[in-house]
Amino acid sequence: MYNVSYYGGNEMINVGILGATGYTGAILVSILKKHKEVGNIKLGSHSYVGQDFSDVYKAFKDIEDGECLDSDMNEFADECDVVFMALPHGVASKVVTKEVLEKTKVIDLGADFRLSDIDTYEEWYKTKHYGEDVLSESVYGLCEIERENIKGTRLLANPGCYTTCSILSLYPLVKEKLIDINSIIIDAKSGVSGAGRKAATGSLFCECNESIKVYGIGTHRHTPEIEEQLSKLGEDITLSFTPHLVPMNKGILTTIYANVNEGVGESDIKEAYEKYYKDEYFIRLRETGDLPVTNYVKGTNILDTSFVLDKRVNRVIVSSVIDNLMKGASSQAVQNMNIMFGFGEKEGIDFVPMYI
Amino acid sequence: MYNVSYYGGNEMINVGILGATGYTGAILVSILKKHKEVGNIKLGSHSYVGQDFSDVYKAFKDIEDGECLDSDMNEFADECDVVFMALPHGVASKVVTKEVLEKTKVIDLGADFRLSDIDTYEEWYKTKHYGEDVLSESVYGLCEIERENIKGTRLLANPGCYTTCSILSLYPLVKEKLIDINSIIIDAKSGVSGAGRKAATGSLFCECNESIKVYGIGTHRHTPEIEEQLSKLGEDITLSFTPHLVPMNKGILTTIYANVNEGVGESDIKEAYEKYYKDEYFIRLRETGDLPVTNYVKGTNILDTSFVLDKRVNRVIVSSVIDNLMKGASSQAVQNMNIMFGFGEKEGIDFVPMYI
Amino acid sequence: MYNVSYYGGNEMINVGILGATGYTGAILVSILKKHKEVGNIKLGSHSYVGQDFSDVYKAFKDIEDGECLDSDMNEFADECDVVFMALPHGVASKVVTKEVLEKTKVIDLGADFRLSDIDTYEEWYKTKHYGEDVLSESVYGLCEIERENIKGTRLLANPGCYTTCSILSLYPLVKEKLIDINSIIIDAKSGVSGAGRKAATGSLFCECNESIKVYGIGTHRHTPEIEEQLSKLGEDITLSFTPHLVPMNKGILTTIYANVNEGVGESDIKEAYEKYYKDEYFIRLRETGDLPVTNYVKGTNILDTSFVLDKRVNRVIVSSVIDNLMKGASSQAVQNMNIMFGFGEKEGIDFVPMYI
Amino acid sequence: MYNVSYYGGNEMINVGILGATGYTGAILVSILKKHKEVGNIKLGSHSYVGQDFSDVYKAFKDIEDGECLDSDMNEFADECDVVFMALPHGVASKVVTKEVLEKTKVIDLGADFRLSDIDTYEEWYKTKHYGEDVLSESVYGLCEIERENIKGTRLLANPGCYTTCSILSLYPLVKEKLIDINSIIIDAKSGVSGAGRKAATGSLFCECNESIKVYGIGTHRHTPEIEEQLSKLGEDITLSFTPHLVPMNKGILTTIYANVNEGVGESDIKEAYEKYYKDEYFIRLRETGDLPVTNYVKGTNILDTSFVLDKRVNRVIVSSVIDNLMKGASSQAVQNMNIMFGFGEKEGIDFVPMYI
Repeated sequence: MYNVSYYGGNEMINVGILGATGYTGAILVSILKKHKEVGNIKLGSHSYVGQDFSDVYKAFKDIEDGECLDSDMNEFADECDVVFMALPHGVASKVVTKEVLEKTKVIDLGADFRLSDIDTYEEWYKTKHYGEDVLSESVYGLCEIERENIKGTRLLANPGCYTTCSILSLYPLVKEKLIDINSIIIDAKSGVSGAGRKAATGSLFCECNESIKVYGIGTHRHTPEIEEQLSKLGEDITLSFTPHLVPMNKGILTTIYANVNEGVGESDIKEAYEKYYKDEYFIRLRETGDLPVTNYVKGTNILDTSFVLDKRVNRVIVSSVIDNLMKGASSQAVQNMNIMFGFGEKEGIDFVPMYI
Repeated sequence: MYNVSYYGGNEMINVGILGATGYTGAILVSILKKHKEVGNIKLGSHSYVGQDFSDVYKAFKDIEDGECLDSDMNEFADECDVVFMALPHGVASKVVTKEVLEKTKVIDLGADFRLSDIDTYEEWYKTKHYGEDVLSESVYGLCEIERENIKGTRLLANPGCYTTCSILSLYPLVKEKLIDINSIIIDAKSGVSGAGRKAATGSLFCECNESIKVYGIGTHRHTPEIEEQLSKLGEDITLSFTPHLVPMNKGILTTIYANVNEGVGESDIKEAYEKYYKDEYFIRLRETGDLPVTNYVKGTNILDTSFVLDKRVNRVIVSSVIDNLMKGASSQAVQNMNIMFGFGEKEGIDFVPMYI
Repeated sequence: MYNVSYYGGNEMINVGILGATGYTGAILVSILKKHKEVGNIKLGSHSYVGQDFSDVYKAFKDIEDGECLDSDMNEFADECDVVFMALPHGVASKVVTKEVLEKTKVIDLGADFRLSDIDTYEEWYKTKHYGEDVLSESVYGLCEIERENIKGTRLLANPGCYTTCSILSLYPLVKEKLIDINSIIIDAKSGVSGAGRKAATGSLFCECNESIKVYGIGTHRHTPEIEEQLSKLGEDITLSFTPHLVPMNKGILTTIYANVNEGVGESDIKEAYEKYYKDEYFIRLRETGDLPVTNYVKGTNILDTSFVLDKRVNRVIVSSVIDNLMKGASSQAVQNMNIMFGFGEKEGIDFVPMYI
Repeated sequence: MYNVSYYGGNEMINVGILGATGYTGAILVSILKKHKEVGNIKLGSHSYVGQDFSDVYKAFKDIEDGECLDSDMNEFADECDVVFMALPHGVASKVVTKEVLEKTKVIDLGADFRLSDIDTYEEWYKTKHYGEDVLSESVYGLCEIERENIKGTRLLANPGCYTTCSILSLYPLVKEKLIDINSIIIDAKSGVSGAGRKAATGSLFCECNESIKVYGIGTHRHTPEIEEQLSKLGEDITLSFTPHLVPMNKGILTTIYANVNEGVGESDIKEAYEKYYKDEYFIRLRETGDLPVTNYVKGTNILDTSFVLDKRVNRVIVSSVIDNLMKGASSQAVQNMNIMFGFGEKEGIDFVPMYI
């Protein structure tokens, strides 16, 4: 564990990224290159082993020219204080062992350690889970809600993109018992980068451009993740989650519907959001009518949210936006790293929105 | 009414378009130029009087070079067998009089004759309605549902874009009493052309591109229009309708949620859709799982629809797509014209999708 | 040759499409389904044999549900009056034999029969050419220029997309000796559909969207094709051709630069264009200053062109636009079919621009 | 001049932005908010006086909520160490006087102080120039070339977006006399943000999306600016410059053609670029064949450039990319500020590309 000692003094930590050549991996590289507490960055890849990172992502010429290495977790664990895993589900549960966690902290951007119940995981992901022995020590890394638990963990499950936006939007309403928990509907819209960098016909420019589609109705894997986290607040919650693919690179907008409980008014809802979020740097509560737009948060770790209480139908409609690759993936992963290592929570992720 | 006599034999009818220089007007020109039963097309404009149409829309060079005339309804009524009105709301109710309707048929693509109750109109549109004397003879032009009523009318209210997609999606479910009518939520997504051709900051390329936004939560004017048409089936319906602006030129996707009534299964829903639509040329019922995408119907008069019954939450989710400027506006207006004049219903609007 | 007899009377011809599931193939299907002289359409595919066409392109549900068949040229030749080939280069030269041409006409949308010299072909395409025996009877199908030759041929080489736009733009200038033929520079910009439907990382939405790139400087294979056709006018021409990839589905814009010869004025240039094109239905000559935009011709077989004579630098700059999948591929192929079979040249391809 | 003293020690400077609510102004705000040497930022606007900046650009909520003030240059000069002007041409020449320059430094992002000759300015811009008395002390702020001159100036003309990309691409070739200066052709492509945030029909989403157009052939105002800067190297240069509008928010790609002089080879060209740029942090020389793409530099102050020597035609083709709002406007303006005030040149503008 020689490497962990680095971050005690002025020293910087060494980080590893397994899956550095996917989109979330590449964004991690972007952020970590400018992070003051980060020293060496070790890049692991599956498809591009032996190539320079800046040959895979030519935008990184002279910025990150390091070689993509074979994704050997043990080797990464030996040399890194923290290893980010940006891999397809099913991989992490095989390689993250107690031995690995003795040597390094792990921040998994995939799904393997998000669900606490292995049966639920295997049912929704249609694959076996191999990490039962470490799963129980995993902490769900929704920073604004789980901050205290995150501090002490060595295995961090970074939330899904849709999940982050959905749970942060619903948490105050459920926690304060303002809504009928059987009435929750999440209609979510995402940019195409959520599909990753895999060469697939469905992700081609001409197939996505100038078109919107709905997919995975009732079957998207972020559904049980949202349900589990919200059910932790007391009652078992089952809800509708419907994702859509929008012709833009980045951004998620969730439009959430729920019937409000008897007697709940606008001020109750407003107070609930303020109670939990008014001091949160990365959550911006917008006034009713000031509806969020995804470009308000592009390139940032910010979630913008706003609600409307529609008295005609007695429903609250909450709309929220994040950057799916940032707060929905990589910048939240770094926010988690900051919390886990005791760095300033904003360090390296305090970006101004790239509005255009 | 000399002009109406034209379409009896081999003669072609003369048509007028008030508001020809807006997007829906221009699409009308596109369609009508190739329509076999249409002869002269008279173009009315507000902003471009005296200019050639092909100077306003340079794409129309050598196709429609006619001059844009002042939008004088009386003059248009004298010369045209049918006048299409593609104008902002509030204008049509002033100029469509019984005298005008003696002389010509009117197909209004605006909102003035869609709602049967003037008070509801004035409440949602925040403007006075001047056409009380003719409103009662207006027929709501949702072709697949109101076909018989459309045949005899001389004043046709062409449905709104969101409305067309929403009502056609919900009609069989409500009519067959398969869903809880208090639980209906319509989450709708539209391309930017729905905002028209007005030079507004919010419609600029850099403001819309690479971003999605929600707007008009609980206040969009298509809401009472949807509610009125569905309430005609028996019970008063109040519902949630939420529109979104998607970075693409054209297309509407509605994702509709409703709780299914006790005992309703997938086959019941399927039968309901088949009962009303299986012989409809412009409605394509897709199998569960074959979810609609807006580019499947781009440039056509087709509505594609598909449903999923999600038993986990006991909800049906119906997703449907149309081209907002076609079935959602101009081609449906021509479909209405075809029905009103006894032409083949597909005449001039039987387009193959422009998939890319 | 029983099938050829069909088009003598009122009968319709049978057509085959090899490579029907690529973008140009699918557009061919769109056009031919509505073509009055076309009866059966036989679909050949490489990757989707045995699947219904409307499963590959779901937009075609109820429009073209036929099965994709194995691409056996002999079988297609037996049953079809004309076979369109929309295949990667190198395939056609293997299967188009004199025996095939005895049985059917062939319109090749690929490159194999565009260059008259096999060595040039093999040098630029880096592959062997197998069709020497039929190459000499191939006619280059640039309709407006080669119309008379097209009429009698049974092997038609449909021009490349960039080539169509470039040659039509330059032909009058070269033919009338108005420019220095050593000074020609073609800077071309294309939508992404030009790259086809192959699943490749470089064609992904997130890689193309919000970005423009240049490629193939000095090496693009349309270069020798342009040079050969223009050199037929008298002098050997070598020129610069530079393609760019623009984030849009369709459309090509070429900006062409050439030094004008001594004494050449604006009126000389205008007269040259009018001499060759003023009666061409699918070419629109725009006034100086009325510069072409790709959406003016979207979905059409039209080429729009305009020139500026910049006296400061003594150069003419010609800008022209086409729809790369239409005039640049499929609709020009049908225009060629119309000419070859003696149909009306506009039959089935007389579309109004889909401006938005 | 109390304010200038701030930047002597640890103190930060106060900056003003006239035209803060345009796109370049807003990007300036983004950058300057995180700049370590910048203290107060005073915002001037024309259209939004009295509104909070974060009401105009809602993305800036909690980041820059300051009020937009009237654009009074004298008041700004009194309070600011440097005033950025992001205004339409013709405004700056009226308000920048010797008195103003006694009080503050001025960085003008507009055109008024870029051309040294007033007649040329008035001819191309069709407006009178009022700043003759200060024009002569203006320094052209192309950092990599004019660095020494920039250090001492109090009036800085920030180069145009097209100009920056064009001159940096051509400078080594002209300076080293490698090309025929009468043969230069610049074919430039820009994102839509170059047109600014003015509500104009031509900048609407549906007018720009899915389309490319050419404009201003032979008449674009960046032409004399490019010519003047290159002519300073010795010989009078007249060239072709043709801009195009590409459907993307940001980015400029220039494709430049020139005939190479007798005997010039690839290594000569490579050496020329390395001579001037190999130590420039914000210029990346890419190998032949590694062609620039605009998303390689998105969100950065970087220019990427690469050349191909096409021996078939004896021409060099140079392709270069910048972010038009960054290196082409706002980040270069801050780079100039850094040089003028003796800050680290990279301070506040050392961004990693936002590749997606």
